[in-house]
Amino acid sequence: MIKKASILKDETIDGLLGGKLSLIQRTRGYRFSLDAVVLAHFVRVQGKKRVADLGTGNGVIPILLAAIYPSVQVVGLEIQEAMAERALRSVALNHMEDRVEIVRGDVRSVEGIFPSESFDMVLSNPPYRRLKSGRVNPDPERYVARHEVEAALPDFLRGAAYLLRSGGRVALIYPATRAAELLVAMRESAMEPKRLRFVHSFADRPAELVLAEGAKGGGREVRIMPPLVVFAKEKIYTEELQNMFSEK
Amino acid sequence: MIKKASILKDETIDGLLGGKLSLIQRTRGYRFSLDAVVLAHFVRVQGKKRVADLGTGNGVIPILLAAIYPSVQVVGLEIQEAMAERALRSVALNHMEDRVEIVRGDVRSVEGIFPSESFDMVLSNPPYRRLKSGRVNPDPERYVARHEVEAALPDFLRGAAYLLRSGGRVALIYPATRAAELLVAMRESAMEPKRLRFVHSFADRPAELVLAEGAKGGGREVRIMPPLVVFAKEKIYTEELQNMFSEK
Repeated sequence: MIKKASILKDETIDGLLGGKLSLIQRTRGYRFSLDAVVLAHFVRVQGKKRVADLGTGNGVIPILLAAIYPSVQVVGLEIQEAMAERALRSVALNHMEDRVEIVRGDVRSVEGIFPSESFDMVLSNPPYRRLKSGRVNPDPERYVARHEVEAALPDFLRGAAYLLRSGGRVALIYPATRAAELLVAMRESAMEPKRLRFVHSFADRPAELVLAEGAKGGGREVRIMPPLVVFAKEKIYTEELQNMFSEK
Repeated sequence: MIKKASILKDETIDGLLGGKLSLIQRTRGYRFSLDAVVLAHFVRVQGKKRVADLGTGNGVIPILLAAIYPSVQVVGLEIQEAMAERALRSVALNHMEDRVEIVRGDVRSVEGIFPSESFDMVLSNPPYRRLKSGRVNPDPERYVARHEVEAALPDFLRGAAYLLRSGGRVALIYPATRAAELLVAMRESAMEPKRLRFVHSFADRPAELVLAEGAKGGGREVRIMPPLVVFAKEKIYTEELQNMFSEK
């Protein structure tokens, strides 16, 4: 069985989109979360567009995108060797080698890896925990993925600004408590915020996350979408979330 | 009847908070809107705090605040003489002379009007239509109140930064499409965004307005409140809005 053979002792194969896709993850390392699923459904990308995912981790975003948008070409960039290698095996497992490329590299050095203005869209679920904030993760793989150890938001935005063609779109997911910081940083990188959607666990609770789309060199007008509510009640996803988990 | 005597030929007296308050408005001039009501309910101010409302217009915000928060002292600043005078008559009509003061003056010259750091909170529903955008209002009073003819957002934020004590709060209502601009401008004025609430006409439609509270010299963390939805269905206000219109 190729599926069994392709994983290591401390890894599992987990289903995505109701089992239509498979993702190799470490049992105890960084594992994909809701963030990737809602980000992949937030963007709108049609036709044979070239998309980059900066800090792709296990490759969950490229794999979801390739499944949801049937003609896009996706490149995932990941600094951690073991994660990039694992993402590559997941791409193979889903037979997406012709549409998803995984590149090992540092978002702070994209100039040496890709030509400028070579992408239509750049996505990222960047690390967002400040150093020294929160519990320090004993697992170095998770630590780099979640904390601003290697790169932080401004690096990801600089990378996006370099990679995108003029008018191209960047889409990020970030903690709602840092939404003001995110918008300021986007504008400073000339990636004007164009569309925002806040993610609330419950309709009557403050937002936990913000989904933000910006346009390279775009005009100053932002659309605030209706909120994305995760749970209809305790442990029951809203219909919108259920659809995201099972779609296509 | 004092109520009848206090109004001019082209004015009306309109009820606020279910008729508990009265507001003198011109029949065809600038009239208060939902903005003032939701802003007055967005802020939280306790005790004998001093509050300023910059660009107070007909005085609707000071009058609402004085009614909702029973110990605050409110000063409304208005550049247009006829509006300031009308606001003054509304204050008298509601017997609030001891708690609400109306001052005629320009937000760009607050230094000559009030001592620095003399307020705990500054509110504003600033003009937000760009010059040359939208239909030009044939009524000059409405034009100045709604368009950036005299002063624009940065002037209001500069005024607030001057008037507020350290840690004091500014609260504004602004078009949601300009939310990114608002947050950038707040940070540039060292009024860090601390609390945001988006106002949607309907739960499943983009937001029209944003309510934003900032703290002078505050830390970088913002709370995104659950959305404020205006209509439950066509022409029927949500329970929250109904409560705002009738409260206390």
